[in-house]
Amino acid sequence: METKAIPQQLPPIFSIPFFKLYFRGISQVMFQVNAWTGIFFLAGIFYGAYTSDMPAVAWGAVVGTFASTITGYLLKYPVDKGTNGLWGFNGVLVGCALPTFLGDVPLMWIALILFSAMTTWIMVGLNHLLAPYKVSSFTFPFVLITWFILMAARIMQGLPDMGLSRPELPSSVPFALDTNFNNLLVYWLTGISQVFLINSWVTGVLFLIGLFISNQWAALWAAVGSAFALAIAILYQCNGSDIANGLFGFSPVLTAIALGTTFYHVNWRTAIWALWGVIATVFIQAALDVFFAPLGIPTLTGPFCIATWLFLWPHLHLDKKTLQG
Amino acid sequence: METKAIPQQLPPIFSIPFFKLYFRGISQVMFQVNAWTGIFFLAGIFYGAYTSDMPAVAWGAVVGTFASTITGYLLKYPVDKGTNGLWGFNGVLVGCALPTFLGDVPLMWIALILFSAMTTWIMVGLNHLLAPYKVSSFTFPFVLITWFILMAARIMQGLPDMGLSRPELPSSVPFALDTNFNNLLVYWLTGISQVFLINSWVTGVLFLIGLFISNQWAALWAAVGSAFALAIAILYQCNGSDIANGLFGFSPVLTAIALGTTFYHVNWRTAIWALWGVIATVFIQAALDVFFAPLGIPTLTGPFCIATWLFLWPHLHLDKKTLQG
Amino acid sequence: METKAIPQQLPPIFSIPFFKLYFRGISQVMFQVNAWTGIFFLAGIFYGAYTSDMPAVAWGAVVGTFASTITGYLLKYPVDKGTNGLWGFNGVLVGCALPTFLGDVPLMWIALILFSAMTTWIMVGLNHLLAPYKVSSFTFPFVLITWFILMAARIMQGLPDMGLSRPELPSSVPFALDTNFNNLLVYWLTGISQVFLINSWVTGVLFLIGLFISNQWAALWAAVGSAFALAIAILYQCNGSDIANGLFGFSPVLTAIALGTTFYHVNWRTAIWALWGVIATVFIQAALDVFFAPLGIPTLTGPFCIATWLFLWPHLHLDKKTLQG
Repeated sequence: METKAIPQQLPPIFSIPFFKLYFRGISQVMFQVNAWTGIFFLAGIFYGAYTSDMPAVAWGAVVGTFASTITGYLLKYPVDKGTNGLWGFNGVLVGCALPTFLGDVPLMWIALILFSAMTTWIMVGLNHLLAPYKVSSFTFPFVLITWFILMAARIMQGLPDMGLSRPELPSSVPFALDTNFNNLLVYWLTGISQVFLINSWVTGVLFLIGLFISNQWAALWAAVGSAFALAIAILYQCNGSDIANGLFGFSPVLTAIALGTTFYHVNWRTAIWALWGVIATVFIQAALDVFFAPLGIPTLTGPFCIATWLFLWPHLHLDKKTLQG
Repeated sequence: METKAIPQQLPPIFSIPFFKLYFRGISQVMFQVNAWTGIFFLAGIFYGAYTSDMPAVAWGAVVGTFASTITGYLLKYPVDKGTNGLWGFNGVLVGCALPTFLGDVPLMWIALILFSAMTTWIMVGLNHLLAPYKVSSFTFPFVLITWFILMAARIMQGLPDMGLSRPELPSSVPFALDTNFNNLLVYWLTGISQVFLINSWVTGVLFLIGLFISNQWAALWAAVGSAFALAIAILYQCNGSDIANGLFGFSPVLTAIALGTTFYHVNWRTAIWALWGVIATVFIQAALDVFFAPLGIPTLTGPFCIATWLFLWPHLHLDKKTLQG
Repeated sequence: METKAIPQQLPPIFSIPFFKLYFRGISQVMFQVNAWTGIFFLAGIFYGAYTSDMPAVAWGAVVGTFASTITGYLLKYPVDKGTNGLWGFNGVLVGCALPTFLGDVPLMWIALILFSAMTTWIMVGLNHLLAPYKVSSFTFPFVLITWFILMAARIMQGLPDMGLSRPELPSSVPFALDTNFNNLLVYWLTGISQVFLINSWVTGVLFLIGLFISNQWAALWAAVGSAFALAIAILYQCNGSDIANGLFGFSPVLTAIALGTTFYHVNWRTAIWALWGVIATVFIQAALDVFFAPLGIPTLTGPFCIATWLFLWPHLHLDKKTLQG
């Protein structure tokens, strides 16, 4: 994730500068360090959550970011990680995911707070594991923790699993998809909104604006990533309703930003690399959909993590920014 | 695992000092280096196995410990590992697990000997993998090997799989649990006995005594771990019959000992950490129950390994014993 | 994989020396660096593919090797890896596997080319991960990529999955196997041919000849590995039709060559080690068969990779070639 030179001391909790750090945490989901970007992202989450009558998702995002950020304070982890927002991005995603898939009951909120907080040290641990390979754990702390909770919810009566699919053996699914231009536009933007588990093209637009404020290349690559993933998913005729709901788009969006601009310099060579990464992400998305079908568990951003690692590890000894030796 | 200063030469096989080393191996399952502890553990195994009419489990434990310990001799692995009992703890668990889940036939005993022996070098290998991250492989060599054998038994007619559950898609299960005080006491102690796959509250008492002899904090944390896990499992309304059989207790018992006293100094700060680890272990237990449902395979102590790694990795660069920088 | 002193410059693509390198890539599947061996292997593939009326498998092998080898050129990876054939062995296997399990349609060929190429950098990345543990990624880049594609094909209408098994919960399967001597001979040789997903005893003979040209010990260990695996699979009464089709043989063949001669010096001590590795591979083969049953996905050479890693990691600090300190 990108870093900026910032004062090396943490602001008091709930002060104004604290909220700068807080919103930076939300922006880090798409590799940005920009409080305004975070505000646009949270606005998009609120819009999408309220228009689909799931306000708990929005408030989950707010609470999850607090829990994981404050955990960084309490555990006295390195200050620069905190000021760059690295304590918030896994927490906000746990906060979005739990109310999306589970019932809005007190036990869900307790789990949401406990496990959002936990992402902060899981991240530190997984980053230690990955440090020798010069990559970070991305959103995988969120992915791993949420996989555990959602699987657990299958047998915990205290966590109603009404938002999860029914477990079933994988089978081929109808492609049937309405591909007129307007619909394609909606699928494309929804792919971007699904990064935060939101199903709304308006939210997709808000996310693009938020990205654009911070880094124009990131906005471009998010847009290209979702569009190219949509094209591949249609070409290979994946599950039509998943395509329409943007579920083949959100992981490729993150892969595209990561490979297209965050970890490599923008040029034609790295652009081809990033597009190839998007193709891989679409296949890994479909593969993990199948892998988790018997459990009825969503892939979350697992496909992004796997694909991006696979496209960064080979160049451990190169100047990654240019893909040259 | 803890170590003591001990003579740096291996005793002859089947000599009296050999049995000291042998029983230390059994005690290492709960991180102790104490032959008396191992004797109490084995006594508990024999009591539980014979009272539930499964004597093969007890003799499996005896044989498995021999196979894995003698393998350390034959492969000439470092003497101090052997004298500290690190060659025995995976073997004894393979020895308990195979007769628990598979039929008592000669081919099962051949597999038991071959794969108990194998745990000794699998452990050395996995410890190499984990060395840079300053954790060891815990009971994971046993877990991995036993997962392989039990899955294989599903299609090996030579290994009758009568002790395994039927493979089925995960579904929610009734919580229905009799929670009067006497029953809770039984569940709590059974959670401790299940560390060695034994379903008996008396065995749980013998295990606590064995621990107490070696390390009072370990006994306390085993007791607290099982009790707190029981509370969490009831709060979140997990599978009632699994709770009653102690199946939500045994992994948290190990997590609690590991985090509460073995790898961190005992203090309030680390106590909170250990309790949090217990919560995570219960969720990971439920998650892996679901993950393995379509295969009908038990989780073994996998949840303990995963949770404890996740709670040790972040503090790679700290003085772990105090959780301070 | 073995290496030879060879000119440190890549030949022009499609020159005669390029084809030397190309065929060495095919020979590297069984750890050889010998163009003639590669030619025999490809001949075996063509024989098997055409006699079972699946010519696409043979041409897939040809195309896959090109795609992955040329990718090494384009990405300017270290020359010595290329001249030793390390860019080809994963590609040829992807090229065999995709037409074996998927329909012969243009979208399959596009995936075959894209993902064969991808194995070259996935290999570089995974080798980086494994470098501190002094093992390489073996055929795992092929395994991982192909698992992804085959799982994806379950929900991609564009990739007909007619060659895959139906997803189903694991259940015990009849052992019923005709074990007269002639049949055993066929099963044994078919186990060798299945290294390249070919079901033909003639191909098995061609592979043995190819190996013998390069390294007589490798040929011997391939033969012993398949035979011993056959014995273990019969002893433990695995799935009869899988045994007959050589599906319990191909991974043990690779384990046997790897442990018996490639990574350890040939002697009695390492021979026992290699045979033990073969036993482990048969169990892991059965285990992964069960693990993937609900997805209907083949194990590929995953069991070989896992078993061989488990038998190499412990001896990180030894002179591996002798298994002595």
